[in-house]
Parts: sequence; C-alpha cells; structure tokens
Amino acid sequence: MGKTVKVGIIGAGRIGKIHAEHLLRLDDAEVAAISDPLAGGELEAWAAKRGIRRITTDSGEVIGDPEIDAVFICSPTNTHVPLTLAAAAAGKHIFCEKPVSMDLQRTQEALEAVRRAGVMMQIGFNRRFDHNFKRVRELVREGRIGEPQIIKITSRDPSPPAADYIRRSGGLFMDMAIHDFDMARFLAGSEVEEVYAKGAVLVDPVFAEYGDVDTAITTLRFKNGAIGVIDNSRRAVYGYDQRVEVFGSGGSVTADNDFPNSVVISHGEGVVREKPLYFFLERYKEAFLEEIRGFIDSIRTGSPVEVDGFDGLQAERIAHAAKRSARLGRPVLLNELEPAGKQHP
Amino acid sequence: MGKTVKVGIIGAGRIGKIHAEHLLRLDDAEVAAISDPLAGGELEAWAAKRGIRRITTDSGEVIGDPEIDAVFICSPTNTHVPLTLAAAAAGKHIFCEKPVSMDLQRTQEALEAVRRAGVMMQIGFNRRFDHNFKRVRELVREGRIGEPQIIKITSRDPSPPAADYIRRSGGLFMDMAIHDFDMARFLAGSEVEEVYAKGAVLVDPVFAEYGDVDTAITTLRFKNGAIGVIDNSRRAVYGYDQRVEVFGSGGSVTADNDFPNSVVISHGEGVVREKPLYFFLERYKEAFLEEIRGFIDSIRTGSPVEVDGFDGLQAERIAHAAKRSARLGRPVLLNELEPAGKQHP
Amino acid sequence: MGKTVKVGIIGAGRIGKIHAEHLLRLDDAEVAAISDPLAGGELEAWAAKRGIRRITTDSGEVIGDPEIDAVFICSPTNTHVPLTLAAAAAGKHIFCEKPVSMDLQRTQEALEAVRRAGVMMQIGFNRRFDHNFKRVRELVREGRIGEPQIIKITSRDPSPPAADYIRRSGGLFMDMAIHDFDMARFLAGSEVEEVYAKGAVLVDPVFAEYGDVDTAITTLRFKNGAIGVIDNSRRAVYGYDQRVEVFGSGGSVTADNDFPNSVVISHGEGVVREKPLYFFLERYKEAFLEEIRGFIDSIRTGSPVEVDGFDGLQAERIAHAAKRSARLGRPVLLNELEPAGKQHP
Amino acid sequence: MGKTVKVGIIGAGRIGKIHAEHLLRLDDAEVAAISDPLAGGELEAWAAKRGIRRITTDSGEVIGDPEIDAVFICSPTNTHVPLTLAAAAAGKHIFCEKPVSMDLQRTQEALEAVRRAGVMMQIGFNRRFDHNFKRVRELVREGRIGEPQIIKITSRDPSPPAADYIRRSGGLFMDMAIHDFDMARFLAGSEVEEVYAKGAVLVDPVFAEYGDVDTAITTLRFKNGAIGVIDNSRRAVYGYDQRVEVFGSGGSVTADNDFPNSVVISHGEGVVREKPLYFFLERYKEAFLEEIRGFIDSIRTGSPVEVDGFDGLQAERIAHAAKRSARLGRPVLLNELEPAGKQHP
Repeated sequence: MGKTVKVGIIGAGRIGKIHAEHLLRLDDAEVAAISDPLAGGELEAWAAKRGIRRITTDSGEVIGDPEIDAVFICSPTNTHVPLTLAAAAAGKHIFCEKPVSMDLQRTQEALEAVRRAGVMMQIGFNRRFDHNFKRVRELVREGRIGEPQIIKITSRDPSPPAADYIRRSGGLFMDMAIHDFDMARFLAGSEVEEVYAKGAVLVDPVFAEYGDVDTAITTLRFKNGAIGVIDNSRRAVYGYDQRVEVFGSGGSVTADNDFPNSVVISHGEGVVREKPLYFFLERYKEAFLEEIRGFIDSIRTGSPVEVDGFDGLQAERIAHAAKRSARLGRPVLLNELEPAGKQHP
Repeated sequence: MGKTVKVGIIGAGRIGKIHAEHLLRLDDAEVAAISDPLAGGELEAWAAKRGIRRITTDSGEVIGDPEIDAVFICSPTNTHVPLTLAAAAAGKHIFCEKPVSMDLQRTQEALEAVRRAGVMMQIGFNRRFDHNFKRVRELVREGRIGEPQIIKITSRDPSPPAADYIRRSGGLFMDMAIHDFDMARFLAGSEVEEVYAKGAVLVDPVFAEYGDVDTAITTLRFKNGAIGVIDNSRRAVYGYDQRVEVFGSGGSVTADNDFPNSVVISHGEGVVREKPLYFFLERYKEAFLEEIRGFIDSIRTGSPVEVDGFDGLQAERIAHAAKRSARLGRPVLLNELEPAGKQHP
Repeated sequence: MGKTVKVGIIGAGRIGKIHAEHLLRLDDAEVAAISDPLAGGELEAWAAKRGIRRITTDSGEVIGDPEIDAVFICSPTNTHVPLTLAAAAAGKHIFCEKPVSMDLQRTQEALEAVRRAGVMMQIGFNRRFDHNFKRVRELVREGRIGEPQIIKITSRDPSPPAADYIRRSGGLFMDMAIHDFDMARFLAGSEVEEVYAKGAVLVDPVFAEYGDVDTAITTLRFKNGAIGVIDNSRRAVYGYDQRVEVFGSGGSVTADNDFPNSVVISHGEGVVREKPLYFFLERYKEAFLEEIRGFIDSIRTGSPVEVDGFDGLQAERIAHAAKRSARLGRPVLLNELEPAGKQHP
Repeated sequence: MGKTVKVGIIGAGRIGKIHAEHLLRLDDAEVAAISDPLAGGELEAWAAKRGIRRITTDSGEVIGDPEIDAVFICSPTNTHVPLTLAAAAAGKHIFCEKPVSMDLQRTQEALEAVRRAGVMMQIGFNRRFDHNFKRVRELVREGRIGEPQIIKITSRDPSPPAADYIRRSGGLFMDMAIHDFDMARFLAGSEVEEVYAKGAVLVDPVFAEYGDVDTAITTLRFKNGAIGVIDNSRRAVYGYDQRVEVFGSGGSVTADNDFPNSVVISHGEGVVREKPLYFFLERYKEAFLEEIRGFIDSIRTGSPVEVDGFDGLQAERIAHAAKRSARLGRPVLLNELEPAGKQHP
C-alpha cells in the first residue's frame, strides 16, 4: 500500500489522543475518525483544531467505515476483545492497547479471529520502541554479549494510581509488570517457561484491600536456559525508574534512566543531578511516536508488525502465572495455565 | 495579538526548511509564504506536501505581503542587513540567522532600523534554548552557585566544513565560536570586556590557506570580574562536543553532551557507550523548535524576545575582537573596536 | 586492653598472608606466630623479611601460646570448628574465615563454645567494610531512604575457580553467595525468613558434574516485610561485578563498581572506560585492612565486633536454604532447617 | 644497587613525615635519619614508634652521614638550593620538593651541581604518579588519541591557605599552578613556548594585598603546535577539583575527580553523590607512595627518575612567565625570561 493509511481511533482518552497526535505528524497516515461514548464539545474542539472531521459516539461507525484501513483500540480493557472481533471481521488492521483481555481464552479467540481475517494486529508495548531498550535488544541480537544468561529489569512507577483504578486494573502483574514481561521476552529472545513471583504490600494498604500487591520480585526461567528477574514498585519517590540489564557469556549491556538534562551541580552538600524523567509520558514520548510509525509502515509495506498478537498473549500468560505464583507461594509453569480459561483463582 | 502568526520564510536552504517544519507544529503559527532565488519543482513539492501554498523567487514579495506578520531571514549572511532594513521598513517582526553581518557598523545600522520601526528582532542563537544550557543558566540566575567566577565552554564540531564554505565563512571566530561567545554572555550574565584568542591550524592546512584557524582557545574577561575560556576545534572524531561549566563562589554547574541513548556495554575490552549525538541538527533538535516557539510567543504576547539584536551585536563584537587578538597576538579590549567600521584587519 | 594485641595466624595461604600484612601496618597489633602444615623455607623467608619470628607446623603451639591474644583461623573450612573450639578453650579471641562450617549444628556448637569462653569472634565478611557498602548501610540506617523495601545485589566473579576447588567449595550458595547473604542482612537491617533460589549451569558444564550451579537468582523475604534479590554468576568477562541497591519508601541508594581510574577515552568507536577492578583482592583491598583494624580495635576497647559468630551462622542458614530451594524447586523457610543438623540433602 | 636504600629526611613537617611513612612500607628502603631544626620530644616519639633511631636538628649531619644514600629535602623553599648543593657535593641522591627555588638562576645552579656530581634528583611532582593522570599520559603516549591538540586542566583547591602562607608562597602561579604546568608538559609530551595568564581576585581580597590572585586562566602554546589551558581557583566549595583532558586528532581522553565511594542516593530532590575527595592528601594518597617507590627503584636500578631536575626547572620557568604575563597583560615567551636571573618584576 503506497498511499496514506486512514485510521480510526476508538476511545479518545489520554492514550487515544496521544496516538492521534502522533499520527498527525506522519506523512503517510491520516486520522479519519474518532469514536468515544463521551464525545462532546470538548473533544470536537480538540479534533477540529487538528483537522479531524469525524467524531462519533459509536465505535461501530468507525469500524464499519469502508474508507478506514486501521483502527486503534484505546477503549477500556473489557471492550478490547469485542472490538477486535468486529474490526477483524470488517478487515481492518488493529492496534490494540494491552492487555487484550484479562482472560487467556478470550485473548486467544481474538487472536484467532485476527489470524483468520488476515489483518495485522499490533499490541501497545511501546517500550520496545524506546531508544534505550531497542538498542539493548540490537546489541543482544548481534551477539555482542554472547549468550544471554541473566535478564534484569527494574520497573518502578513514581506514584501509585488512584484506588478506583487499582480495583479494576487487574493487579500489579497484569497492569504494570505486563510491560516488563514483554520486555523480558524481547530482551532474552526466548520464551518464559516458569515464573516465581513474590509480592508485598509496602507502599499503601489499599492494595491489600483489593487483593493486590504494590511491590514485587518476579523470577523467570527462559526456554534457552537463561534466568531473569524483575523488581516492581508502585512508588519510587525519585521518579520513574526504568532500567534493564542483559548479562551474557560475552559481557553485559545496561540501559539507564533518561534524565531531563545532563546538568550536574556540585556544591557544599554533594554532587547533584535532577531526578529521572517523571513518568511514562515523558520517558516514552519518542517511543509512543515510533511505535505508531512502525505500525503504519507495516501496513504500508506489508512487513510484519514488531509486536504482534502472540506477543500480547504471551505477556498475559506470564502475568497470569505470576499472579498465581504470588498467591500459591510456589513457582508456576506456563504450561499449568492450560486450558487457558481455567487458570483464574 | 491573540491570533495565528503568519510567517514568511526567506531562504529555503536547510535551516529555512527546519524552521518551517517547526512552525507547522505550532498551533499559533502559519507559514504563509517562502521565497528562495532557486525556488523550483523540488521546493514546490516539499511545500505542497506541508500545505504551504505560496512559493516565490522574490523576497520582496514576502516582505511586501500585508498579511505576513514576521519574516525568517535564512538567506546568506550578506543579505541579512538589506533584508532586515526592508522588513523593518515594512513593519515585520524579524527572526534573523547569525551573524547579522560581518561588519559591526552595518549590524548597528540594521539594529537601529529595527528599533525605529518598533518591530521585534530575534537572532538565531538556538543554543540558549537547549535543555541543558537553559537549565545551567537558570541555576546560575537563581544564585545556586553564588557569584560566577569561571565560565568554561567546550565547543567542537565533528568534522570541518567544505573548503568553499571555509573561504566565505568569516572564519572560526565569526562562524563557529560566535555561538560560544553568545553562550558565554548568557551564562555569565555579564558583558565581555576583553578577549585573548590563541588559534592554531592543526586539523587541516586548508584553513591556513584562507587565513583561518581550526583550533582555538579564547580567554574572556567579563565586566563583573569573572573570567572565561572557550576551546574550539573543527574536528572531534567522536562527534559533536558541546559542554559548559560555570564555577562560582558557591559551587559549580556543568552540562555534559547528549547521547543517543543511555546504553552501556561491558565486555572484555572495557565499558563502552556510544558517541555523543553527531552534530547540531541532532543535538539541538529540540532547541530549534523551542527557539521558534519562543519567538512566536513573543510576537503574540508582546513579551521581549529571548535573544535580541543587541545579543547578536555583542557576539559579533567578541568575534571581531577574537579575530584581532589572534592576529595581533595580544589581548584586545572590546572598546578598541570603536568606531565599529574600522576594526577590520 | 591498651597494649599491643599479639596475634597468631593459623594457615598461611593467600588470605592468611594478607591478614598478616595488614596487621603489620597497624600500630597496635603484632604478628607473634604463624602456623601452617606446609611451613618451610619459603614461608620462613617471607616471615623473616617482615620480622615475624615464630613459624611452626603445629597450630596447637599457636593456640597454646600464653602470650597470644587472638588467632586468625585461615586454614581450610573443615578445620574451622575444631580450631575454634580449641582457641575458645584457650581463651583466645578468634577471627575466622567464612563459613565456620558446612554443618549448621557444628557451627552452632562452635558459637556456643565461643559464648561460654567469653571471647570475641569475628567472621571474615570483609565486604561490610567496603567504602561503598558501608556507606550504603549508613544511609539506610540514618533513614535517608525511609523504610527499605527492595534489596538488590549483583555479585559476579570474573572467572570460575578450578574444578578441584569447585568440588570441595560447598557450591555456589555456600562458597560465593554466602557473602551476598550476609550483605543482604547487613543492608536490610532485618533477618531473612524465606529463600527461593533458581540456579542454572550456563558457564561451564563442570559445575553440573559436582551437582553445583554457576548462575543463580535468589529471592529473599525479610522479617520486616522487605524483599530482596541476588543474582550471581561465576564468570563476568568484564571483571568483578559487585553492586548493590537498597530501594525504600523515601528513595533509593546504589553502589557501583570500583574502577582502576576515572579515565574515559572518546574516539571514533565510542566512549570507553576501563573494566572494573578485576577481583576481590583488588576491589576489597582496603576492606581487608579495615576489617582487621576493626577486629583489633574491638579487642583493645572491648566494643562488640562488627560481624560476629551469629552473623556467620545466619549467612550459613540462608545458604543452606538456598541450596535446598534450588534442589526442591520451591521456596524454603529458614525455620524448616531446624534442627540444624538435619537439613542436608 | 641490590641492597636497601638508606634515606635521610631533611625537614619533618607534614610532607616529610608522609614520605617517611611511605618509605617504611617499602621493602628496599630504610629511613636512617631525620633532621629538623625543631626536633624535640614529639618528633622523637613519632620516630621511635616507627623504629627510626637517629633524629637531629642539624641537616649537615644527615648529609654528611656516609651510610646514607639519598636525602629528601622537605624543608622550606629557601633552603632547597643550599641543601641540594651540599647533598650533591656529598654524593647523595636527592628528592626535592617543588619549587627548587623562586629564582631561575639559582635553580639552574643547583641542577648544574647535581649534574656534575652525577647523582639523581627527583622533584616532588607527585601528580604524575596519580592513577588517573598516569593512565591519561600512557594513552596519549600510545597514540590512542592521535596527535594532541588541546590540553585542558582544571585545578581548584577546596579552600585558600592562611594569609601568612599566601604572603610567602610565591603566589598562585609559583605555589599552586606549578603542579599544573608540570602536568601540562607531562600530558602534552612537548615543551611550552608561550604563556598568557589572566588572574583575578574573586575569592578573598587578602590575595590582592600580597599582589597575588586567587583565580586564573592560563593559556599555553606548546612547541608541537598544541595549545593548552589551565583554570585555577583557590576555593571550590565542593572539594578538590582535579581534572584533565587531552584532545587530539584521534579522540579525547579525560580524567575525572576521585570520590570517596561510588554511592548515589536518589530521593525526592534529585540524584546525589558525595563530593570529591577533599584535598591533595586524600586525592593523591596513593600517588605520594608511588612517587617514592619510583625514586627508590631508580636509585636501586639506575634507571632515570620519572621527574628530574629539568622538569622542575621548566615548571618554574612557566610559572615565572605566567606571573609576568598576568602582570603585563600580554602573552610572554619563555625565551624572554633569559638570562634567568633577570626576570623578576
């Protein structure tokens, strides 16, 4: 496809708007329509200023538009599967935020529909497009550190979400660590086979009220023999802490946080630099643009998307295994989760 | 002025196009016209894709357009003064690339015309808008390092320009170090009174053929008693090297280079990170956008521009003093340069 | 005790000699005798040069010497308990290399004998005296990062030991990670209650031959609710990798590796610094001196030693638990190990 | 000479005692005698504890002792030349603190006497033995950065000396920057030909009272075409600031400050590490030992000392040129200083 890709955005919350802004910066994409149940004056003004003409409350209108090539599913998680099924049936390429669903069987059904329809599906694991992590992956793939042996990921949010969000988030493993599970697979270049997760409530007792944790260490065993570890916290007072390390037979490669600038001040108290970039919108600003660019390129050239539905499914599997491990207090094999629909506590 | 600022671009070379791209990303600016003596099919295609309708070979047409609020003078240096005079006469705000001219008297005439016309003039010292240097300046201004005592600037290009460019560049001090002279004034918050420049030809003998140098150390004395030093080279094989330090009675603040990522690889040979960002287009990418945003904001709100004509004049004065110092082998007072027209060797 | 502390060294291998050299640099200590079963010409020459007069093959002679205040047990692990019992019976203060034994019951007997004898016992966990880790501990203790929540330790050797050493080492957890287990308790300021260890053989199949692993990730749960993780490898090709992080409610504190110098070279290929200091003798050079200084000070002033027998016992307990966890594939509570003598596989 | 080198220390102030302590740590050196005009109970106790038997108030007794191989001249600057002359006449090797004298002619006479006597003379430029700067020099010598083009030295003390010291110090250039002048020659591998120094009184007006400065920038031109710059301050509130950079045709090599540890704390206010090591005794602790080791090795093996009398003379020459340049406000050629005796203002 050499022409401009026409896109419909479903769900005009924060992330939907961000994707729309990025699409506007691409020469070969166009935002043809936006649907949101709360579409109103504010959204219309926002869209008008950006030359986006069609606003609707009905996602079906977007999916049914024959002019639209691809849809971005940015609505709440429980709508992802029905929208994916509808979009696939309509022959649209799909960009879907993570997770596809909280239920492995449902996610698998969605993927199967996508496969049958022959459309592309990309999952919103934006961190793979981060300048740091992408470079780490390249170096690993090029064999610069030999065979990967230990994968380490530090992933801590600057502050916990609101209680209401916690309740319906799916929990730390499904909502937050799922990005790290995808990153672990991406960096290791291998599938996870076993998971042991140790969770704790150290930040705020509200997490315990919802059966959730706010702090966790997850150990992973990969198919290729490597082992991995992820530590998560819902609150790092110094800002968003996102670092990785891949250690291998030939060396080690690390990616540090990004900082707002390189300024260091030395005074009588010490040598000080600013905190890392505050949160994901700042840290992954460029990555959000790059993931969209990649998706549009794939549609235009027919090359495979960089994060497909199977990647989404596998990260969900690991998240389910981690939840179960934390609950049962023992390592859990991904195999134990089959058949998919049965693994919920 | 609450409305959109209509801009005309004069000179559609690399920098003219960059400014145009950035103006397109601002909600409150519009590129109304572009003039370039070589305007042709390629430029028209470039402009059409961006929705810029009017392309002309005649800068007068742009300056004479009553709808246009501001012009960007991105044409060769020898056209800056006549274009500034014409734009001022037409009541346009002016964004002018550095230097305004190679002749202090001419520059002063241009500034006088701008002053009489009551229009705004901003000089293209983009580095003041760099996230690092801007932060250094803020910390100095806030008194975080006490009274500034030593200003140090490292400024090295990754590779020398073509011989043809060298010939008409005005020399290292006027073409390259002029950015550093502006940075020195910016960081010190004080005027330069005396300059001692030591140049050398160590990179390529072609510089000597044109009476130029490719390596230099310049010592500055500021009005507030501080002293400063700048080192320049036309070729740093490891990339663009742009660092500053302000040392004061209460501490020191430094800004390091920017790197493409934070990745570090440790292997049998050492601990390695990538080279700094290659050159000014990469390093100052955001700064170019920010300087334009600042200019448009000033026009809309009436607030003073952050780099005005006087800043351009002073940097030129220091550049002239540095050239003279290198030639005479002694320190030169800025006072010696008056009357302006007479200082050329 | 205001006078010079007279020391006997038992075992004149590498570590015994290092301790002797350091004692020679202290004003308030004296090496009165050295015993080694292989005592001969070479050792006598070494000792003579340093003014150490008495060399014997009989450790009993050292322990029985009424002039000697303290003994350093630097002989093979299987001699630690009998020598400790004998030294305690003789009323000597004891500095003992780790581990006290491979058997918790035996270790407890030795500690009990020390307690009854009223002598001091310090275990050779030299890393607590490292300038980096000591400072991390201070900052944690001062509450600078609030309540500790996550303890992370990276501990990788530059190259694996000889096969013969592997066979009798007690395995990665007892021989190598035991230092990290002590460090974890030290940094957390809390006892470990549960251990989950995941081992792998990725460096050299010889480890598998001896039922050992060469790569491991160990998750710890502390009494105060904090969680911890240690990753170990027997071979980091870039040198000794010894880093820690303590993350808490008020921030995070990290200690990086030490490097031979601060030199960085930037060239066409990147920005490069040398590898970290090669191995423990280089990295912990000062720490070895400081631990001896601390022990001698404790003897002279009667203040408690900084690493006592109980610290030795607890690290052994964690090591046993880690071995069992890796073998059984499930988390192990330290409580499960009682009664001590029964926990061996 | 295969035997132990017997050393006499002349002047038992701080630096004399430091050298003595280091000599005691070398296997092949012995401190045979110490002279100090104020020799008394305190010094005798200090020496007795270290097994140094002979203490005298008469330097002549040390120099005249036929058993002594080498003398360390650690007495006030105005005694360096007569003591050097006497020691050379007595056939002793000489380690002399910098500067040899404040008068180039006198220094040259001392060097001439040393030459005629055929003894070795090492000057106390300890920084050449610093682990960082030594490595920088090695990399430059190995051609790792191609041809050196720019030498940059930052050298700032943590706090100014007492007024009484300032008065008789010889001034910033002769007392403090002289180390940097030696470092510049060492790093460049070339002689300085021209000096331009810009001084200022920004730290404390007391410096002006003694005709001295407390802040300075010195530009150097080397014989091989390279240029250099040194910035000095008598007070960096964040501690001793000692950094160098050599920039060349093939890259750049830098050495940063040394820090007491590698600990970094991240909290709500920023990312903080401790200040650099406080002053020269901390920063150059190992370098002081290494310079003595080198001197003793040279005596034993007959290999040339690493910093000889000529190095001392050249650094003094540059210091005189810098003082003159700062006074006259123009660059000064080292050639202008001849004949040596005449250059004083």
